[in-house]
Amino acid sequence: MHLLYWLDILGTAVFAISGVLLAGRLKMDPFGVLVLGTVTAIGGGTIRDLLLDVPVFWIVDSTDLIIAIVTCFATIVLVRRPNTLPKWILPVLDAIGLAVFVGIGVNKALTQEVNALVAVCMGVLTGVGGGMIRDTLAREIPMILRKEVYATACIIGGAIHALSYLYFELSMPMATLLGILATLSIRLTAIRWRLQLPTFALEN
Amino acid sequence: MHLLYWLDILGTAVFAISGVLLAGRLKMDPFGVLVLGTVTAIGGGTIRDLLLDVPVFWIVDSTDLIIAIVTCFATIVLVRRPNTLPKWILPVLDAIGLAVFVGIGVNKALTQEVNALVAVCMGVLTGVGGGMIRDTLAREIPMILRKEVYATACIIGGAIHALSYLYFELSMPMATLLGILATLSIRLTAIRWRLQLPTFALEN
Amino acid sequence: MHLLYWLDILGTAVFAISGVLLAGRLKMDPFGVLVLGTVTAIGGGTIRDLLLDVPVFWIVDSTDLIIAIVTCFATIVLVRRPNTLPKWILPVLDAIGLAVFVGIGVNKALTQEVNALVAVCMGVLTGVGGGMIRDTLAREIPMILRKEVYATACIIGGAIHALSYLYFELSMPMATLLGILATLSIRLTAIRWRLQLPTFALEN
Repeated sequence: MHLLYWLDILGTAVFAISGVLLAGRLKMDPFGVLVLGTVTAIGGGTIRDLLLDVPVFWIVDSTDLIIAIVTCFATIVLVRRPNTLPKWILPVLDAIGLAVFVGIGVNKALTQEVNALVAVCMGVLTGVGGGMIRDTLAREIPMILRKEVYATACIIGGAIHALSYLYFELSMPMATLLGILATLSIRLTAIRWRLQLPTFALEN
Repeated sequence: MHLLYWLDILGTAVFAISGVLLAGRLKMDPFGVLVLGTVTAIGGGTIRDLLLDVPVFWIVDSTDLIIAIVTCFATIVLVRRPNTLPKWILPVLDAIGLAVFVGIGVNKALTQEVNALVAVCMGVLTGVGGGMIRDTLAREIPMILRKEVYATACIIGGAIHALSYLYFELSMPMATLLGILATLSIRLTAIRWRLQLPTFALEN
Repeated sequence: MHLLYWLDILGTAVFAISGVLLAGRLKMDPFGVLVLGTVTAIGGGTIRDLLLDVPVFWIVDSTDLIIAIVTCFATIVLVRRPNTLPKWILPVLDAIGLAVFVGIGVNKALTQEVNALVAVCMGVLTGVGGGMIRDTLAREIPMILRKEVYATACIIGGAIHALSYLYFELSMPMATLLGILATLSIRLTAIRWRLQLPTFALEN
């Protein structure tokens, strides 16, 4: 699970960057940017911990909080022209962060002895919660409700994770790895070939 | 209280449908729809349980969560043209769901020995919380802050419920029934005759 | 700390008024206004208490809740033309409320033995949380993410508060006073001379 620790830090940093980049389009002052970036990075796990009624992770151990804050400042100072980055970098990093966060969420939920359905919900919330708060604060319709196969990837990856642990009796590290790889590969496939489920649109 | 159980399930299903129908106007992918519908159905009770510091209801017993998810899928598959439904059906079902949720919220708060004012707040939050999250995520100004006599009905019904239990010493089932009927009849009256309180609008 | 008690009540009332005035621009019904004003007044402290896992303050002692509700009604009844007020009144009252709320938040966090960084976060959340919910519900980009030196003042004031208590071993009342004065004077200075940090805006 050592790998998971570093992936978690990577995911936190990536989500913080995504908050800062969105803020950059909205002309916020630097501390406003800091708030938006930090909320994006730690919001999902915070909601999860509140629902599971366990101590909030960044209050117990502030590593992730510090990572988020430092990343925000670094992004503010270093990034001036996000468009000079290769286009695939951010989506791919975001996919890694998402997959890891879903895995961590399912993991933590399962240690609280919840059922599989609740565990998947916690995984999805951990993965998408921060982005939903970010988009809501920035007055956008949350991307995860719209974008190709975003919630879908989390749900399937989380389900594989929870089911392999609870019903196929894989060890937790194996189940976690399997779930993360599932979420990640679905998202990457969707990004690469611009897959999209048929949208649900009602005639009025 | 057996009736309350079934009304709760009805309310959960109705609120899930309202989330799905709103999602249908926003061209989301099916799992985005599922997230929005589920959040609408269980969001209010979740906020209530967090505030009261009791275990979140759908983590303890996932019946309502399952009802919400199944309803979302059923709505996605079955409903194609919401406008072919008789126009009064959704508002009336929504009024029933609202009244029941307010009743359940006040009920649960009173068993935690809070005062009447807090109990009414918990009832209102249970009733309107899910819809507020739904509208916020979908970038609408929450209907409950605007629509005819919506918050009003919840507050009055919740107050009748709490006061009859705490001060007039009715039994809990009687007080609950009274509160639910009050919320419901105020909402139905408002829907039927399009009642509206004078809006509070400031000159600038 | 007697002064703090009265400042808290003042802050609660001011934040409730700010919620009601925003609602007045959105043509809500009076109970919708009540909900928005109350949420603005007690939202920040509520989030803080949830994160710290302590009982929510207005459930334990409903004074602030009652202050918020009464202020909302009074504002609805009394204020018709906010523009006839001297222009400086609301921002100055808001700055007082903000500074006090940040101080109370840091205070409460420190009594839970969290580290300095978490204490500052709790102060900022207490100060700006209510306003963020208000703006989000009213579909505005939260002012605190944009307005001159708003989050900045909270962060600096909160940091001075936490550091003087934890590292310079000032007594809690002294540290609180120092932090509140710091937040307040930064905000007032920014309001008076329209200071603004350079915004962080990305070229695309």
